[in-house]
Amino acid sequence: MNIKVAVNGYGVIGKRVADAVRAMPDMDLVGVADIATDWHVRTAAGLGIDVFAATHDARTAMQSAGVPLAGTLPDLLDQVDVVVDTTPKKVAATNLQAYRAAQVKAVFQGGESHATTGHSFVAQANYATALGRDSTRVVSCNTTSIVRVLGALQDADLLARARGVLIRRATDPGESHHGGIMNTMVPEGSIPSHQGPDARTVLPNLDVVTMAAKAAHTQTHNHYWTLQLNRPASREEVLEALRAAPRIAFIRMADGLTALNTTVELMRDLGRPRGDMWEVALWEDVLTVERDEAYLTYQVYNEAIVVPETIDAIRALAGTVTDGSTSIKMTDEALGMRREFLPAPVRATTA
Amino acid sequence: MNIKVAVNGYGVIGKRVADAVRAMPDMDLVGVADIATDWHVRTAAGLGIDVFAATHDARTAMQSAGVPLAGTLPDLLDQVDVVVDTTPKKVAATNLQAYRAAQVKAVFQGGESHATTGHSFVAQANYATALGRDSTRVVSCNTTSIVRVLGALQDADLLARARGVLIRRATDPGESHHGGIMNTMVPEGSIPSHQGPDARTVLPNLDVVTMAAKAAHTQTHNHYWTLQLNRPASREEVLEALRAAPRIAFIRMADGLTALNTTVELMRDLGRPRGDMWEVALWEDVLTVERDEAYLTYQVYNEAIVVPETIDAIRALAGTVTDGSTSIKMTDEALGMRREFLPAPVRATTA
Amino acid sequence: MNIKVAVNGYGVIGKRVADAVRAMPDMDLVGVADIATDWHVRTAAGLGIDVFAATHDARTAMQSAGVPLAGTLPDLLDQVDVVVDTTPKKVAATNLQAYRAAQVKAVFQGGESHATTGHSFVAQANYATALGRDSTRVVSCNTTSIVRVLGALQDADLLARARGVLIRRATDPGESHHGGIMNTMVPEGSIPSHQGPDARTVLPNLDVVTMAAKAAHTQTHNHYWTLQLNRPASREEVLEALRAAPRIAFIRMADGLTALNTTVELMRDLGRPRGDMWEVALWEDVLTVERDEAYLTYQVYNEAIVVPETIDAIRALAGTVTDGSTSIKMTDEALGMRREFLPAPVRATTA
Amino acid sequence: MNIKVAVNGYGVIGKRVADAVRAMPDMDLVGVADIATDWHVRTAAGLGIDVFAATHDARTAMQSAGVPLAGTLPDLLDQVDVVVDTTPKKVAATNLQAYRAAQVKAVFQGGESHATTGHSFVAQANYATALGRDSTRVVSCNTTSIVRVLGALQDADLLARARGVLIRRATDPGESHHGGIMNTMVPEGSIPSHQGPDARTVLPNLDVVTMAAKAAHTQTHNHYWTLQLNRPASREEVLEALRAAPRIAFIRMADGLTALNTTVELMRDLGRPRGDMWEVALWEDVLTVERDEAYLTYQVYNEAIVVPETIDAIRALAGTVTDGSTSIKMTDEALGMRREFLPAPVRATTA
Repeated sequence: MNIKVAVNGYGVIGKRVADAVRAMPDMDLVGVADIATDWHVRTAAGLGIDVFAATHDARTAMQSAGVPLAGTLPDLLDQVDVVVDTTPKKVAATNLQAYRAAQVKAVFQGGESHATTGHSFVAQANYATALGRDSTRVVSCNTTSIVRVLGALQDADLLARARGVLIRRATDPGESHHGGIMNTMVPEGSIPSHQGPDARTVLPNLDVVTMAAKAAHTQTHNHYWTLQLNRPASREEVLEALRAAPRIAFIRMADGLTALNTTVELMRDLGRPRGDMWEVALWEDVLTVERDEAYLTYQVYNEAIVVPETIDAIRALAGTVTDGSTSIKMTDEALGMRREFLPAPVRATTA
Repeated sequence: MNIKVAVNGYGVIGKRVADAVRAMPDMDLVGVADIATDWHVRTAAGLGIDVFAATHDARTAMQSAGVPLAGTLPDLLDQVDVVVDTTPKKVAATNLQAYRAAQVKAVFQGGESHATTGHSFVAQANYATALGRDSTRVVSCNTTSIVRVLGALQDADLLARARGVLIRRATDPGESHHGGIMNTMVPEGSIPSHQGPDARTVLPNLDVVTMAAKAAHTQTHNHYWTLQLNRPASREEVLEALRAAPRIAFIRMADGLTALNTTVELMRDLGRPRGDMWEVALWEDVLTVERDEAYLTYQVYNEAIVVPETIDAIRALAGTVTDGSTSIKMTDEALGMRREFLPAPVRATTA
Repeated sequence: MNIKVAVNGYGVIGKRVADAVRAMPDMDLVGVADIATDWHVRTAAGLGIDVFAATHDARTAMQSAGVPLAGTLPDLLDQVDVVVDTTPKKVAATNLQAYRAAQVKAVFQGGESHATTGHSFVAQANYATALGRDSTRVVSCNTTSIVRVLGALQDADLLARARGVLIRRATDPGESHHGGIMNTMVPEGSIPSHQGPDARTVLPNLDVVTMAAKAAHTQTHNHYWTLQLNRPASREEVLEALRAAPRIAFIRMADGLTALNTTVELMRDLGRPRGDMWEVALWEDVLTVERDEAYLTYQVYNEAIVVPETIDAIRALAGTVTDGSTSIKMTDEALGMRREFLPAPVRATTA
Repeated sequence: MNIKVAVNGYGVIGKRVADAVRAMPDMDLVGVADIATDWHVRTAAGLGIDVFAATHDARTAMQSAGVPLAGTLPDLLDQVDVVVDTTPKKVAATNLQAYRAAQVKAVFQGGESHATTGHSFVAQANYATALGRDSTRVVSCNTTSIVRVLGALQDADLLARARGVLIRRATDPGESHHGGIMNTMVPEGSIPSHQGPDARTVLPNLDVVTMAAKAAHTQTHNHYWTLQLNRPASREEVLEALRAAPRIAFIRMADGLTALNTTVELMRDLGRPRGDMWEVALWEDVLTVERDEAYLTYQVYNEAIVVPETIDAIRALAGTVTDGSTSIKMTDEALGMRREFLPAPVRATTA
């Protein structure tokens, strides 16, 4: 029997999770809850998704605005096994009580603190520890990418120390008509930025320090890492370690993928929903290894990277799949995730 | 029997035309031709599209780069009824000779001059005059939008004179890592800008003057029009005239669609390929009519708006559908074009 | 005896007014008042400007932060003839009571409503009507430019009707790390935008309608006008009318001044304080006249254009100069305002 | 007797060097040479600077355009001791022959290779080795900042290894109407980027690796450094080392200087010509030291930072001042360079 899923909060992450749940063979999306009355939630209704009012006040406002409602959040929770909470920061802690009262398991997002649920989740790193829990937190987009990449090197017993600079997109493209930054960069005011410590909620032994800043673009973060290896290694060894971990895709400057927007354009060309990229896109031909130091840069599509992790977290809480790599494989196949975006070149033949 | 179609030039417009041809029930895409070796054309191969080398030099380079080739442009032309030429500006005039020699009908794009083919095309305005021709030119994105909107008012016998200000996106989002403008605007150096005269290649009686500028964004043009009506009219009369014409969709600030990027986000949410919008998106609740003057603003998704026109042009040249409105209907249904993007509000009921 | 002036609010406009007052031979800047404790107001102190706490709470905070204080706002008002209020919107109405109680005349800015003072001011249009008043409002940057340019054509009895599109910078360059818009445009939700009606607070007989939008840049607004003349006129007649009015400077695409940022760069090169441009910069070689219609575009440096008007308003309220054109001349000479930014070309000679 | 100086190339750097030379008590600007006919060079003429045609062809074009000419480049070289070559990249090597033939010493910019002159210059690091030479190269803006900051730590015998991420402004603000990048970042395709090796042309023992990218803004580069110290040190020790070196100014997030544009706004407020900042602006309160690692970020005003170095290079080649620190002091005083931009807070007193 399929896992019955609710999404509370139909925003940047929530709408993507809703679509991904609908794409999974072992899950049913029962509905989404929200408090808004604008085009966003009305679009959900147009896509055949049942919409529920998240609060009593919202119900009145949504009805007045003509949003078709299937009920309220309690009605939705009555029908589901797992709720994914993608409400804005700080609302979640309160919601958790309601979810527990309704005996619904809950997946939160990286805006919440680790303490709220006591468990932070990245599928490849700690799927097993989420089994049977009533709640977990999928870590943020930046932290997820760090765990994927540095975790891969840690798994290969190559990594001694990681020092990263995270250049973040300033705001999301659909929100960029307010709250943006223009023609500037905004460095974070303290070092380390929170992403380093946050990765240790999943990989406690990571020696990692991050500096962060916002730059004047709206699509995808861009990380730069200086890695101290625990021994001299070849470039191929580092690549092998990265290839052994899931959800890292390899791109190349030599193919003309030379800027953040080019990769985004490629996603659109591949027919991805919303042009989403769930993988960390790592520039293979920029990766440099010098004796016992490695340098690399990758791109994090912040709107989508946590979506597959959220799907896995649903399964882990539901307990329907006990093996993390099986869940990852199910998710990745259903979404169409890839390790390479371009077909391999054919061997040139004489004409 | 389906129309067999080639696309020469797999760029911003070409790749969209290729997809649209594949979506049409009465057309087959035989292949695309290009001269590049980078990710763009290799993506086409990955999507199951046959790729041909557009030139002899390109064939060698593409083979060396491992791009799988189905042949060269002459091979492609041998197999098709109509070629859509989406090569860069000024290459087209030369190509026309080759197409004529191969007895293939040809659709060009708005970057070419009217004189090259002697016919300029917007489906709703002059489909019939393209029937039986060996070539035509689909006018540019801006001109297409002008013909759709002003043509609608002209058809309703409402329009005396139109004065427009066209604020253009500076470059396309996939190209914006070179050639962009930053933190500025660039006004065109002469008035009228070319779009006004260009609209008269399709609607010769239009009294229109345009000023234009580039602004510092990458997605969609934004037009502002002051319209002198030929008599006092009500806002509803103007709206009716616009609703009577195809390919204009109505959006509303009141729904939260308040900026160019919000509409783009909506297209992504609707699951449109590449987030494309083929319609002119006109702000219904901004449209203002004062006695015999009307003021309006709309948004032109420049990467996609000419795609349905190109599809219609293929049919007109092929002569398989003799009635323009039938072709428009076929195209619009196959693409999923709409007049409203949001479902109509339900009547609020008592709870 | 010099006019003693206070500036209340040391922000984008206030700091420029303070500098301009210091540049005038007939004015003394007694001090500026503010409530902030950050670099902005501390810079003022470093420039030798006496700083006063605008409120009691602010005084405590400023003292704690180590801002050197010369006193509080009442102390400042005690010493001046005129106060220029450049506090944020809506604070002003309350302040007016305090200024009246202190018997200090007050100049407000365009963010306030006309009703607050009952008088709106642009020097070239209505200096005389401000003489002897206790307060006035210098209209906003956009409105000031409209009055300068359209007023010039009205004075020449050429203008029947003006329809404008105002593309505004989204936020100021010093503030652009929050509140900006990114990669988009935001059209105003209703037509006419407020600037048209606002210009009629100064020029009541103007037949003007404006549409407005914000674009993704931070420096200078850019206006596009379609002007219905009341008779056919030559381009030279229109230019003559514009040249007859003050504070319009002429720039040319042919000189390479082809974009908003180029003009800003020119101001920096001319050694202007902060790169300011007090003039409306009108593209002379873009101006087009067709029979009885004229089309033009100009650039409004929103951070500075109201500064000379504010200086004139000080004089008008103080009553020390009764003739507007005399005041304008004094202001313009002291600031170094110009009609042409480049030296006239020399006649080419044989070498 | 003052050093007689020419500037060949009146662009972003050249015009600033020209102004700085005019500000020095021991130098005379004889004139500038260029090949353009547009507003840029005509502005120079308006500022009272003699303009010379850099080539024979340019002379004809400039005369036709009405640019007042004082002669040609050979005429200019006849009258000077030192020429600063700020022509575009790759022109310089050819020019060097002409300068040598004219027996004029020459200062080149960082766009040229070290090999062209055989000497690379940063005043605080190697002034003495430039004495008596006929030419040198002032290293690029990024490299200059690296030598200032890392050199300071090396001088204090604190630095073992430096790993940096350089986020560059995409283009200059006056040029940003063409060639910009929009809503993206462009990582450099290879690691290390050239700035690290380039710093070793001045500080040969530096262990430094840099990664670089362009971000979507036009003013100032932003560097992030992870520094391996050769022993555990306190934050105050690191700060002391930085304070001991010249041309590093300290800014603080706590003062509200929280973004690249805020610092630029501060420069404008300080009355700097063109809003220039010649100092490296280092965030003092972001600097973090953990045992034997230090992390810091600073801002490089790329249009101006090499100007004081160029002035010192002129003196070194001319040989009029033999001590580097004396020259630095002369330069810095004449320009008004600072270590702190804000006045020190006053001790709060009771009111």
